[in-house]
Order: sequence, then C-alpha cells, then structure tokens
Amino acid sequence: MAVTEFSIISRYFSSLGRGEAVELGVGDDCAILHLADDQRLATSMDTLVAGVHFPDDAFPEDIGYRAVAVAASDLAAMGASPLGITVALTLPGADEFWLTTFSEGLALAVSEYSLPLIGGDTTKGPLTITVQVFGSLPSKLALLRSGAAAGEKLYVSGTLGDAAGGLAFIQEKWQPEPEYADYVMNRFYRPTARLQLGSALLGKATSAIDISDGLLADAGHIAAASGVRLTIQSACLPLSAALKSHPDENQARQWALCGGDDYELCFTLPAHFPVPEGCTYIGEVCAGEGVDCDVPVDTASGYRHF
Amino acid sequence: MAVTEFSIISRYFSSLGRGEAVELGVGDDCAILHLADDQRLATSMDTLVAGVHFPDDAFPEDIGYRAVAVAASDLAAMGASPLGITVALTLPGADEFWLTTFSEGLALAVSEYSLPLIGGDTTKGPLTITVQVFGSLPSKLALLRSGAAAGEKLYVSGTLGDAAGGLAFIQEKWQPEPEYADYVMNRFYRPTARLQLGSALLGKATSAIDISDGLLADAGHIAAASGVRLTIQSACLPLSAALKSHPDENQARQWALCGGDDYELCFTLPAHFPVPEGCTYIGEVCAGEGVDCDVPVDTASGYRHF
Repeated sequence: MAVTEFSIISRYFSSLGRGEAVELGVGDDCAILHLADDQRLATSMDTLVAGVHFPDDAFPEDIGYRAVAVAASDLAAMGASPLGITVALTLPGADEFWLTTFSEGLALAVSEYSLPLIGGDTTKGPLTITVQVFGSLPSKLALLRSGAAAGEKLYVSGTLGDAAGGLAFIQEKWQPEPEYADYVMNRFYRPTARLQLGSALLGKATSAIDISDGLLADAGHIAAASGVRLTIQSACLPLSAALKSHPDENQARQWALCGGDDYELCFTLPAHFPVPEGCTYIGEVCAGEGVDCDVPVDTASGYRHF
Repeated sequence: MAVTEFSIISRYFSSLGRGEAVELGVGDDCAILHLADDQRLATSMDTLVAGVHFPDDAFPEDIGYRAVAVAASDLAAMGASPLGITVALTLPGADEFWLTTFSEGLALAVSEYSLPLIGGDTTKGPLTITVQVFGSLPSKLALLRSGAAAGEKLYVSGTLGDAAGGLAFIQEKWQPEPEYADYVMNRFYRPTARLQLGSALLGKATSAIDISDGLLADAGHIAAASGVRLTIQSACLPLSAALKSHPDENQARQWALCGGDDYELCFTLPAHFPVPEGCTYIGEVCAGEGVDCDVPVDTASGYRHF
C-alpha cells in the first residue's frame, strides 16, 4: 500500500490527532508525547483480527470503535489517564466506503475516550487492526493484578455476559427479545472502557484487571499474580435485563462467568471500603490459589473466539 | 490463541524485558515506562505482513530481527534514544520451531539496539508483526523532516540500494558474485538502524528521515515538509562493492535511487558542517519543491513490495 499510504492517513485520520500531551502527531518518523514531570507512561497493545475477534462482515464503524475501546480498557484496568493511540491498519485494499466508516467509528471512540490518534502504519494484507494505547500514571500509583490480599472483597463493574450474548445473537445462536437485540449487540461491538472508574480506584483498589477473556479466566490472573484464592458467589453476578430474559438461566450465568469481551473491571478492595458506584460485590479474597465458584462451569458453553 | 497466549509470552519473550526505563514489563494490563524529567517520549509503529514485506518462506529469525530493526530505524531518524518495544504477533498457529527461531532474532535485535520487550499481544491469524518502538528525546531537540533550508547540503549514511539488490537475489532476479550474496541478503533481512548516528545528529542536522521506501521517495518527504527542492547528484550516490559488481551500472543506480528497505538515514546539514563519519554528500538543498536527479528514473525497476 506504499502508494496510497500517505493519502489514506492524511485523508481519514490526521484530523483526529489533537491532545494536550501531543507535541507531534501523524506525519514524521515518530510522534512525540510530553508527560508531566511526576507522571509515568502506561502503554498497552491489542490486535483485532477479522474472523477471529470480529465477524468478517462486521460493520467497519463498529470495528473502528471497538479497536479503540478494547485498547482503552487496558488503561482503565491500570487506573491510567488517556494520552493517545497509534493504529496499525492492515487492509486487503483501499476501499473508500470501508475507510470512511471505519474512520467514523475510530473518530467516535477517539473523542469519547480523549485518545488522539498520534501515529500508525497502513499496510496491505489480511484485515488486522492493532492499537497501541498511551496513558499516564502518577509516579507512585497503579492498579496492578498483584496486590489482592486475603480478607478483601471482589467486585465487578457493570453487568457481565452481555457481550457473549451479543456474540451469540450475531452468530444466530440466540434470538433475544426485540427490545434487547440492539443492547446485546452493542455490548459486543461498542464496549465501554471504564476509564473513570479506573482513575477513581487508583490508590484504593488493591488489584484490578479488565474482563476480556471472561470473568473466571481474568479473575484467575489476579489470583495468580496476587497469590490468593478468589471465591465467586454466582447469585451475586450482575446480569442485565437482557440476560435475565434468557429462557435458560444457566446459559446466562455461564456467559457471565466465562464470556469474554465485556471489558468491565474486576477488582479487589479492602473490606471496609464502600461499594463503588455502578459496581457489584461478587465474592471474597481468601488464602490459597485459583478461582472458585459455587456452580459447575460448563466451559463448552463459554466464550470462544471465532 | 487465548489458550496458549500466556504460555507463549512467558516461554519465549519475558526474558527480553529488562531496561533502565522499564518500571513494569510484560504481564499486567499495561507496561509502565519512566522518562527522566527533561525527556519526551518518541514513538512509532511498523507492521510487517508476510508475503508483502518479507517472503512467505523467510527464516523466522530474520523476520524477528528485521521487525525490531525497522522500528528502531524510526527512532534513529528522530535522533531518539531507545527505551523499549511492544510486539503484536499474529500467527497462523503456535509452531514451536517458528516461535523459537523468531524469538532468537527478536532477542538479538532487542539486545543490539537496547530495546527491551515490554509488552505486546499474540493473536491467531495470517502472519503479521507490528512493532511499537519507544524512545526518549530531550525536551527541546528532535530530528524532524521539516527543518531543511536552501543552501544546506544533503547526506546519506552507509550505502544505498543493497536491500533492493538483496531482494532481487532472494526473488532470483539477480545472481550476485558469491562473495556478495550473503552481504546483500543480510542488508535486506538484517538492516542496521542508525541509532548512534541519529543521536549524534541531534541539534546539528536540520532535517532527517530513514530510507524505507527509497531515497527519492523519502527525500521527497523532507522536500515537502521543509518546503525546499533537493537536488541529488547521481555520481555521488554511495554504492557498496556488491552493487558496483553488478554488470548493469544503471540497475545498481536505480536501486540506490528507488530501492526501499535500506534504513539508512537521509539528512540535511548547514554547509559549514563537516561530513559525519560513515556518511556521504549526495546533493544540495535549494529553493523550490520536489526532488531532482541528474539521471532518468526508471520507476519500473525501482522497489516494489511483494
């Protein structure tokens, strides 16, 4: 795509690059970011592959939005404040409709999450989007996976399993009630990165992770990194009205436990802290290892990438 | 690749992550880098697609090395000092031989360029490697494309056209003399990022770019960004002994002018500066626009991605 690379960048993306920390954006060999003296850089990388992380026929606007939100979610899980993103876009060809709608979704998320686009690369090949996200953290604070201790409480933000339900709907494995169809599909395609919650938990939560692979899997990373056992009470799992409407209660619960792509935060707080707004208590931090739940887990019904 | 993602990361890559600026490497939601108070972050992203940027049957060690060197070259072109990289690896499968040899090439470049691996993502899909590179710049200095002024001199580092010759050899379009075969192939697969030269030029060179798309194309970016005309003298182009041995002198010159992937630096200096070591004067900075050369350019013989 050497010939069209620069025209693509300038036409679709260079208006998305303004931000306080951006000293130099798209158009030179590197972008330049300025961090305040007492701040550190937090950064993470996420790749979405067509046919693996989203259906081949997904609407490009959804792909653009989702790529940014998924990356932003890693900042939320660290408690970091957004500075910007770079985007590597590998495309089969320079299709104008695709680029226009993709960049609209990107622009929406860039604006919503205050993540100016400061650079990237466009190449020719099978559709793949990699987003690198940049954020800032105070010099002494960060939400890590490793600080949970026995006696603390386990929480999640929002509701769980919606994205798995949305994926089941997209794959025509579940037909939700009409009033919930858009909701669950948007929970898959337009996840909400919990940046404000992440910032609010900084200095309070003892561990945090965002739920990309499913609650049990991601809670498992906290358990392993912290050297604790997490006990999840299935009756406490926050389910949306959409998931509660599922005729098979067990299926909805399995999605909440094993479904990926919700991008809610899972975190631990000392027992005396109040429940943060929009969050739900789901269990306890104990001595031991691993994650324990009071219902059998049917991994076969859990989340699968395409 | 959800199941094997973490085992791949820990098995092959987590030993490559130590560096002065690295406060937190692979294994949490974000990596954390610390910059000194008077430093800014310089960052760039490069994607290599199998069958586009390297042959499908390229040796994985070469792919790993090249992916890092290509990204490091963008730091060199800004005069930035290396801090680290993140790597997004999209793989058709978790092939042990491939991962072992790829990680060996990656490790070699990580060590050579002082670029610890601080994070990344592994996904399943068509072979694609995206490297995000992080460097530091003093608060007031950077090599941009935009500072060249009429009356200055144009230079390049090293020799030009070798990588295009190497690619021609790999594609069986040119059979160099036996003593040059390894040399040109390595110039394609193992380019040298000119980090030391870039640092040395900081505060001296008025513009710089690394040659990835070919001298004429990349000099064109300096001309456009600086609002000047660059006049290249073909007799001055630095050619290696390998390229001088080519029976068709014009072909060798066309590779030097239009061949990509050399990753040498092209830069401008005020007229009174001495020629930097390892560099060659190739022309003048004049009033006007565009790039001018005293030989006809046969774009058909120039560089093409696969």
